[in-house]
Amino acid sequence: MAKIIQKYGGSSVANIELIREVAKRAIATKNEGNDVVVVLSAMKGETDRLIEMAKALHPAPEPRETDNLLATGEMVTVALFALACQSLGEKVKSFTGFQAGIKTDDAHGRARILEVDPARIRTELAKGRIAVVAGFQGIDRHNDLTTLGRGGSDTTAVALAVALGADVCEIYTDVDGIYTTDPHIHEKARKIDRICYEEMLELASLGAKVMEIRSVELGLNYAVKIHVRHAHSQAAGTYIVEEDSDMEKTPVRGVTCSVNEARITLQKVPDKPGVAARILSLISKAGIVVDMIIQNQSVAKKPDNGITQWTDFSFTVPAADYPKTMELMEETAREIGAEKVLGDDNIAKVSIVGVGMRNHAGVATVMFSTLAKESINISMISTSEIKISCIIERKYAELAVRALHDAFELDKP
Amino acid sequence: MAKIIQKYGGSSVANIELIREVAKRAIATKNEGNDVVVVLSAMKGETDRLIEMAKALHPAPEPRETDNLLATGEMVTVALFALACQSLGEKVKSFTGFQAGIKTDDAHGRARILEVDPARIRTELAKGRIAVVAGFQGIDRHNDLTTLGRGGSDTTAVALAVALGADVCEIYTDVDGIYTTDPHIHEKARKIDRICYEEMLELASLGAKVMEIRSVELGLNYAVKIHVRHAHSQAAGTYIVEEDSDMEKTPVRGVTCSVNEARITLQKVPDKPGVAARILSLISKAGIVVDMIIQNQSVAKKPDNGITQWTDFSFTVPAADYPKTMELMEETAREIGAEKVLGDDNIAKVSIVGVGMRNHAGVATVMFSTLAKESINISMISTSEIKISCIIERKYAELAVRALHDAFELDKP
Repeated sequence: MAKIIQKYGGSSVANIELIREVAKRAIATKNEGNDVVVVLSAMKGETDRLIEMAKALHPAPEPRETDNLLATGEMVTVALFALACQSLGEKVKSFTGFQAGIKTDDAHGRARILEVDPARIRTELAKGRIAVVAGFQGIDRHNDLTTLGRGGSDTTAVALAVALGADVCEIYTDVDGIYTTDPHIHEKARKIDRICYEEMLELASLGAKVMEIRSVELGLNYAVKIHVRHAHSQAAGTYIVEEDSDMEKTPVRGVTCSVNEARITLQKVPDKPGVAARILSLISKAGIVVDMIIQNQSVAKKPDNGITQWTDFSFTVPAADYPKTMELMEETAREIGAEKVLGDDNIAKVSIVGVGMRNHAGVATVMFSTLAKESINISMISTSEIKISCIIERKYAELAVRALHDAFELDKP
Repeated sequence: MAKIIQKYGGSSVANIELIREVAKRAIATKNEGNDVVVVLSAMKGETDRLIEMAKALHPAPEPRETDNLLATGEMVTVALFALACQSLGEKVKSFTGFQAGIKTDDAHGRARILEVDPARIRTELAKGRIAVVAGFQGIDRHNDLTTLGRGGSDTTAVALAVALGADVCEIYTDVDGIYTTDPHIHEKARKIDRICYEEMLELASLGAKVMEIRSVELGLNYAVKIHVRHAHSQAAGTYIVEEDSDMEKTPVRGVTCSVNEARITLQKVPDKPGVAARILSLISKAGIVVDMIIQNQSVAKKPDNGITQWTDFSFTVPAADYPKTMELMEETAREIGAEKVLGDDNIAKVSIVGVGMRNHAGVATVMFSTLAKESINISMISTSEIKISCIIERKYAELAVRALHDAFELDKP
């Protein structure tokens, strides 16, 4: 007998008929002899409906009140799901986040789970019941309702899996699993059977469509086996698991691309200690998150007043923050005496990810030469132990993904 | 500075615009220097929408899950109301029933409030905030959400008024107050300025449209001054208060009629000890609530086998329970040897109510002669200290109400 957490997303519980369908699935899992805990999102469209009402009353709704409002979405789903199970003759109880013991900090709208007290869930499981838990929500030390932010139901599911020592946390969604790349970009994209947490985290832009990063981090920290699969298919999806020796045999697990970034370059920055910090301090104060940062080797120049070291400094920020960042950089450039600020939001970041690249020489070379073969110019490069990212012109993004997918033969198992 | 509870019903918060309107009203009350606690119902139609979904999944939804579902309706309203207040620059916090300290028993769907712990509300009031509380709901000792049943938000409001020692509990609705009779029946119906709890309880069929009985009982037990008034008018409505000597000067406060009952008569019941209990035991077991009960004086008869006492036994039940009651009575009549079961669901109950009738002789005489003058036959009479009810043919109901209203000159202040 296994302990299984099943999380169903909003599209899987979008209406009464679908709720009945997933209830059947949960019951079938229980009838196979398992303990089953179900975590649900709000019905598709419900959260938007609530936000729309809130915005009609207040242009910038206060987070605490917004949480009170949004938390109702999941409460509705769990009650309906429980009724569906009961109409099918199954023993079941539904729980709000706080009843399920999900305790969070008080950062409304993006709360973090501090502790899970699953005593009540354990009791219900022991009585042979399915426990249905409202995802996305918890309670803080003031007894205020909180929500966990985007993808919060995944986090609820994984946190419950940790607290209950579940054998697997199944994330049901409307895709088959995690793919080697976006199937909309490359028809040869292939479903990945097993992927390790670290790869999943790096494949963020792929994974975020399926599973939120925080829940993967939680899975990594507590080694929770996660199974991403289709709500209306019996086929296995993708297992997100701990890295094993088999995984290292494959140098590249997936190719991903993001077109939501912009690049800013400060040219001819006087190269003194602390200059990078000064460049970034204004934008970090503005709450803008910097992704890639590259500082080129200094070049000695000889201006009129003696020898000075100069450098070029580049970084990327989310495209939405590009205008504000350019504004702040013009100011910074004057302050630190940089010659010029260049900006480009017509870029894409193409990345290859795989734990195997640690042990495979030449992966970077293959990447760069593949892009070169397609006459794609690389303007920035950054690497981590298991990822190589290149900034290229946006118009080449899809071409680059296809070329890299083919070069690393990701269509082959 | 006064402490004021304001309860707004579903029709007063039916949409975004109305929520903004009642928020303005609450803020205006606060700006007059009062502490304000607002209790809200679900937006009109929302509870029905939720019940409809529940019924689509289960023909007889389990009360616990139904409560989980329905409790969300009021949670949505209080969050939206708080956002409306904030957009108007007001300090405010919203609370679910459990956050407001509403502790109930575990009778899901019709829970009773056991205790109110208003500590959190007090704190917010002390900080100069409006506290907005979801009506109709509470939490039981298992930490399960409960709902209080029909009119539950009124009960929440009065219970909070008790717990906080409020100066007045204002019940905002879509009528001006309590009337001497239904204005749809008699154009001369007049708004009552002050009425005592006991009269209000007896005027149930009038009052239930405006205020639920349980909340009036609670008001009576703790002497909470209740003010029933229109949500979109500044005019005073009806105060429900403790009886005072002024009230006794008026023999009749109001006239009410109910057409939702049916009469059943068992003819020629052998008059032995315990027979009334036997007659009523089957229907009480079936959960049917008996209203009027009348047993006529026994009449000595002389059947073939000696002297026996016989009696006729009549009672009324809700019209919806009439067919079932007739069925059970046929069975009972056979068991106890009653001769015949007669039923009539074509009746109406007309009542006059007033604490003054205790000290005014002849009130009953005026009632009976007024009905007689209109050639209306009375088939049953029951009285309490402050009420006289007559069962008449249904077709005369409105005529009887008008005639009694005129006879007691209720149109005059």
